[in-house]
Amino acid sequence: MQNFVLYNPTKIIFGRDTVKEIGPETAAFGRKILLVYGKSSIKKNGIYGQVVSSLAGAGLELIEHGGVTSNPLLSHVRTGIDKAKQNAIEAIVAVGGGSVIDSAKAISAGALVDHDVWQFFKGKKSIKKTLPLTCVLTLAAAGSEMNGGMVVTNEESSHKFGVGNRLLSPKVSILDPTLTFTVPPDYTAFGAVDAIAHILEFYFTTRDPATPVQDRFMEGLVITIMDSCDRVLRNPLDYQGRADLMWSATLALNGWTAAGLGMVGFPMHMIEHSLSALYNIPHGAGLSIVMPSWLRYQARLRPGKFIQFAQRVFGLTGSNATCAMEGIRRLENWFVSVKSPTTLDQAGIAAEDIPVIADNALALARIWRLNEYSKEVIMEILAACR
Amino acid sequence: MQNFVLYNPTKIIFGRDTVKEIGPETAAFGRKILLVYGKSSIKKNGIYGQVVSSLAGAGLELIEHGGVTSNPLLSHVRTGIDKAKQNAIEAIVAVGGGSVIDSAKAISAGALVDHDVWQFFKGKKSIKKTLPLTCVLTLAAAGSEMNGGMVVTNEESSHKFGVGNRLLSPKVSILDPTLTFTVPPDYTAFGAVDAIAHILEFYFTTRDPATPVQDRFMEGLVITIMDSCDRVLRNPLDYQGRADLMWSATLALNGWTAAGLGMVGFPMHMIEHSLSALYNIPHGAGLSIVMPSWLRYQARLRPGKFIQFAQRVFGLTGSNATCAMEGIRRLENWFVSVKSPTTLDQAGIAAEDIPVIADNALALARIWRLNEYSKEVIMEILAACR
Repeated sequence: MQNFVLYNPTKIIFGRDTVKEIGPETAAFGRKILLVYGKSSIKKNGIYGQVVSSLAGAGLELIEHGGVTSNPLLSHVRTGIDKAKQNAIEAIVAVGGGSVIDSAKAISAGALVDHDVWQFFKGKKSIKKTLPLTCVLTLAAAGSEMNGGMVVTNEESSHKFGVGNRLLSPKVSILDPTLTFTVPPDYTAFGAVDAIAHILEFYFTTRDPATPVQDRFMEGLVITIMDSCDRVLRNPLDYQGRADLMWSATLALNGWTAAGLGMVGFPMHMIEHSLSALYNIPHGAGLSIVMPSWLRYQARLRPGKFIQFAQRVFGLTGSNATCAMEGIRRLENWFVSVKSPTTLDQAGIAAEDIPVIADNALALARIWRLNEYSKEVIMEILAACR
Repeated sequence: MQNFVLYNPTKIIFGRDTVKEIGPETAAFGRKILLVYGKSSIKKNGIYGQVVSSLAGAGLELIEHGGVTSNPLLSHVRTGIDKAKQNAIEAIVAVGGGSVIDSAKAISAGALVDHDVWQFFKGKKSIKKTLPLTCVLTLAAAGSEMNGGMVVTNEESSHKFGVGNRLLSPKVSILDPTLTFTVPPDYTAFGAVDAIAHILEFYFTTRDPATPVQDRFMEGLVITIMDSCDRVLRNPLDYQGRADLMWSATLALNGWTAAGLGMVGFPMHMIEHSLSALYNIPHGAGLSIVMPSWLRYQARLRPGKFIQFAQRVFGLTGSNATCAMEGIRRLENWFVSVKSPTTLDQAGIAAEDIPVIADNALALARIWRLNEYSKEVIMEILAACR
């Protein structure tokens, strides 16, 4: 195990009938609230009404900032920052999935500086303070509700970049699994894929060969995510399945699994961000395309961990490279079974585009210091995504 | 999964060479410090020197309160409260294991009230504020370094009672596995038993039949604790083994495994507290005596979870009561293998004492609302501890 510092003060309120807590919880941080959300679906399904009712009941004054898209856009973040500054906003409430929460985080940091918020993403400026943020989660996927990470797409440069800073962590996040009852099958699956990717980025990129506490925790989460996703695809109203999936997705990226792993990387996200930035495909769909190929690439470098994965997650009994590859094949088959794409073709991305995608990914590889990923390596991984 | 609120803001600084952080970390909370510790062993092995040097380097003024014993005593807590009040102490530093940290917690609550601190333990008063507490952990066992629980023995009434309150959680805990290199084999094993007991109290007392995220996390911890304890008993200087054991013991009782389980109980601790209160035996030793008997009692009531435990923790393949009982036998055998006692006889406790022990335990059963535990049930469990 490597040295680590762990500090995660996000308060989680989990379960049925918890949305009503958003007003009282937020009131502790301010009166003038920016309410960030996505599409009008939360108005149709009643979530918007519940949230606004609770916030109003706590005497809070709301400025609205709806319209966040999947793969959230920098231009929309900038508009939110302007609103926050003009209205002397004191706290932000995000109602949505990772895209909405990440947009709210970017606004929470950008509202308190004079320079453009993209400077944070380019690593030119560091975040020193943020507006307090509370969340109502509506999608089991990104894990943003309990961590200090955010990802935004700059549509002018076609770059999808991420930043991590403790100050971005929400103060309070409300996780009511019933809010995900209406998530359609494709996005339910994409969310599960995203959570599995978060776990496997850590699991397979740690350089520490002896992390048994973390390994078993991560293996248990992968098993639970696949199983609970299967259950909710069979029955979207399965509360226990929705709850297991939601909590697992939060735990996949809240720092608990990573504590003690030392340096880890996000090579799958690095490559996928180029797919969703260039083609605006859902993030989880991009990950299920990239993941099998990257796993096979990585398994050649460090087969031992892949054998352990195959044994513990899929119950395989071998102890050689064939077993390692069979574990990857089982995971890929699971992606197929939940109808998440596994080839560039399925996403309508042509093989001729691979050099352009690799160039785009390279920019993020340099910022994230994934120095072993040359353009050639990225192209090799992408070429095998078919 | 049941509804839950999770909020654990203790900052963990884990790894080699981290003791030097105690001064700067503590300075954020106050200048006048009460330094709580146990026996003189920390002076011999150099830990005391490192801590005092770091605290002095941060410009802090120290009042000492050493001499905390295993099964910490109320009288010693009261003396510490007097010192804290007389010296206008602003923050407390605990250097030790669970007994030292629990004493420091009791002082942190008692120093800010006019009534006797035992009122908190009897449930007559509730904790409203505490002095800030930072810790340097020297024993992998109790988990007190990252939770809001404390246990103290009232030597006048021979009662060992516990209290939980979020305000008791340490602000910062420093976990350096090298500080446990000198823990002797018996206390290393007792610590591992304590951590396993914390996990299994939750695992086997939750009424929720569907908690897969938490189950797999707990099963992984039990496996890791047994394995890492075996490794450090073979080589006390095995850093990785000490690290795995230390972090697992913290995770066993920091709230992460319990989130979503709903109501859980501490029946093994309830009975054990009477053994260590009446006979002053080490807490872990008392637990390895009580645990097999209580597990067999509980397995008759809810066999299904015990079959899962036997399968996943010990790799057994059966699916009936025999398999459940074999899982318990394997755990008991492991206690024997690490030389933790498994019978009252081995601790020098006579069978004639069982009614007296049961009467003592009953007092705690009522406070903790373990209402299904009558004197007869407790006597039945104790009678089987042989």
